[in-house]
Amino acid sequence: MTEVNNALSPHGGTLVDRVMEPAKGRVKAKEAKIRLPIDAPRATEIISIAYGFFSPIEGFMGSKDVDSVCKDMRLQSGYIWSIPIVFDISEDTIKEKGIKGGDTLLLTYQDQPFAVLELDEIFSYDKTLMAEKVYGTTEDKHPGVKRTYAYKDKFLGGKVTLINPPKINPPFDKYWYPPKVLRQKMAELGWKKVVAHQTRNVPHTGHEWLMKGAWFASNADAVLVSCVVGEKRTGDYIDEAIVLTHEALGETGYFKEGTHLTSILLWDMRYAGPREAIFHAIVRKNLGCTHHMFGRDHAGVGTYYSPYAAHEIFDQVPDLGIGSVLTLEWWYCPVCGEVTYSGLCGHDKQRQGFSGTVIRSIIQDGVKPPRLIFRPEVFDLVMESGEKYGFGSPFVTEDYLAKRNPVISVPPMEV
Amino acid sequence: MTEVNNALSPHGGTLVDRVMEPAKGRVKAKEAKIRLPIDAPRATEIISIAYGFFSPIEGFMGSKDVDSVCKDMRLQSGYIWSIPIVFDISEDTIKEKGIKGGDTLLLTYQDQPFAVLELDEIFSYDKTLMAEKVYGTTEDKHPGVKRTYAYKDKFLGGKVTLINPPKINPPFDKYWYPPKVLRQKMAELGWKKVVAHQTRNVPHTGHEWLMKGAWFASNADAVLVSCVVGEKRTGDYIDEAIVLTHEALGETGYFKEGTHLTSILLWDMRYAGPREAIFHAIVRKNLGCTHHMFGRDHAGVGTYYSPYAAHEIFDQVPDLGIGSVLTLEWWYCPVCGEVTYSGLCGHDKQRQGFSGTVIRSIIQDGVKPPRLIFRPEVFDLVMESGEKYGFGSPFVTEDYLAKRNPVISVPPMEV
Repeated sequence: MTEVNNALSPHGGTLVDRVMEPAKGRVKAKEAKIRLPIDAPRATEIISIAYGFFSPIEGFMGSKDVDSVCKDMRLQSGYIWSIPIVFDISEDTIKEKGIKGGDTLLLTYQDQPFAVLELDEIFSYDKTLMAEKVYGTTEDKHPGVKRTYAYKDKFLGGKVTLINPPKINPPFDKYWYPPKVLRQKMAELGWKKVVAHQTRNVPHTGHEWLMKGAWFASNADAVLVSCVVGEKRTGDYIDEAIVLTHEALGETGYFKEGTHLTSILLWDMRYAGPREAIFHAIVRKNLGCTHHMFGRDHAGVGTYYSPYAAHEIFDQVPDLGIGSVLTLEWWYCPVCGEVTYSGLCGHDKQRQGFSGTVIRSIIQDGVKPPRLIFRPEVFDLVMESGEKYGFGSPFVTEDYLAKRNPVISVPPMEV
Repeated sequence: MTEVNNALSPHGGTLVDRVMEPAKGRVKAKEAKIRLPIDAPRATEIISIAYGFFSPIEGFMGSKDVDSVCKDMRLQSGYIWSIPIVFDISEDTIKEKGIKGGDTLLLTYQDQPFAVLELDEIFSYDKTLMAEKVYGTTEDKHPGVKRTYAYKDKFLGGKVTLINPPKINPPFDKYWYPPKVLRQKMAELGWKKVVAHQTRNVPHTGHEWLMKGAWFASNADAVLVSCVVGEKRTGDYIDEAIVLTHEALGETGYFKEGTHLTSILLWDMRYAGPREAIFHAIVRKNLGCTHHMFGRDHAGVGTYYSPYAAHEIFDQVPDLGIGSVLTLEWWYCPVCGEVTYSGLCGHDKQRQGFSGTVIRSIIQDGVKPPRLIFRPEVFDLVMESGEKYGFGSPFVTEDYLAKRNPVISVPPMEV
């Protein structure tokens, strides 16, 4: 394998930019003889690739990259990469559309021209092997494994170009910072060290202090809250509540001006535990972050990974070019009378963990919790968000899944 | 000036050890033809030199070291050093005792043989220049300047050997860790990174979080509380209350077991601000610390130094071999409902600083403050210490100064 410098930021040394102005995009689209509609997961991955979130990746992986990523956690080029980014397709569709290597495909989304795929390779890959390598298990109860097994039988590999940049809909538009834009903003703000916080939660004070502790530990100028917006399951917090409440922590002074920024990352969680931690770190490095915090059970599910597996895997890639900040748990300690850190507070027996279930039931009851548990401004906003975006609930329901306003809208384009 | 490696720990590369077994000390003492009684400041400096707290210094400075320390903040050897360590003496005493260069002097303290000084040099030095260079002012309202002006007209330079190691009296004996002993203890505890907290205060929660924040910022295994025990002024906290309450923070779980240790440093504060910060850092490096925290107005007095002068001077000596941790203020924020960091909490208008005067008046009133301001266990101990050691008050009084039990006792020794 080639010796490469994994410490480069962005990953690979250059920020990928495969976003085309629609005027040029229209011309590009005309090269394509075949039209192929894509689903939401493919569309969000194309956006992330095109804007450079996934640098140095320029398209959907070919067989050699997939194999190398699965087995060695590296791209063929030698750069560390932990999760296959693949375009699955059925043999029937391939036949029906007459797709073959060397083709240029016009990918459509929301019935509009969206991106162009320059097809290098059509291949298959052992999905059990992929599951085993990426998730460390072949059990289909694991949602990432289930996702892998649900892939259609063939994969398309090749570079993609976004030819019709989508509109990011409110309230998410405000938090949409592609890497180039975010890096520029960080430079303007004078931020030299930024620590990333990965979240799919409405923040309670435990989360707030997790961020504050990591800010100290990384001697950072600021915390970048990077909210993963993507596939939802019922019972999750709705995305709108997540982004709005995180921003509110800054707006209402729980973070001082200039120490906190809320942003979104379009990504469907794989729950790959340590492998996903590496992936999150690379993406946040591309965004300009110098550090990434990892707490207990980062991006894991069930009991597939040890609680601090994300940290253990980092020891294997010391050259990744982004610092890993270990964050143990913060809890409410009645002896201290405040939120304290499990690595420092000795009142283990008296501690009161921030159980997700307890917090959830507090919110479901609608009774305002103490400000040491949940900031009142955050609480009000959770409730408001439920009313405004969640069909009455801040938690994802079938109603929400069916009727929510889409995060992105592809503008009309004539080709 | 010689190029030396200031990053070595201990400072200079070797821990000075000039403590002699009393049996050998008795023999050594016999070489001395002249007996000279010394005062408490000289005695504590000899202890600190002999046990290696002041490594690489082996005795009282000669004229070249004094001049080089004053003007260049370095010893003649090239090692950074910021405060002159001098033995002042009057011409009358020199004449009366017939002291001359090359003599061996038996220094007595508490009427017992205590140490031997191998006299290299008798010299004088411009005290105004010394004040100007060390304290940045020649105003005798500055206690360090006043101390300098009070020096007698001559200085004795030469190596010292402690020949009759003193007993450290309770309650201080428990916190007495000479560098060699402390380094061994840190190794046993597995501490690789330790951040030093310099204090002459009974800790309120602002101090507690100062330490916790610095622990995060230095990614330390533990905090070493290094209580400066030395000359007191009326109104100061009594030394007994300081050490006992700091230890209590650990004993009662506000610091987890294995993250916190209380120790003493025998030293008369000079209030030299940035120069004293450098001195504190060197001494704590000798103790085995990898980091030293410096807050607002570290070791300063009045308005002689800018609030963060300690940090500014560190930028001038990046090679000191100990990390400097900037700690801004922690305050009680009624919006957050807890103790928060001024670098992160945006509620500037609502903040309630931990004014020393307010805390003092709380203690004087004897009314237990909220646990978010003052830990109840600490409060009780302050009161108890006042009863037990302070003649009814936890603050230094004339009574305490006159009647307190001495911190050290020199055992009887026949020479």
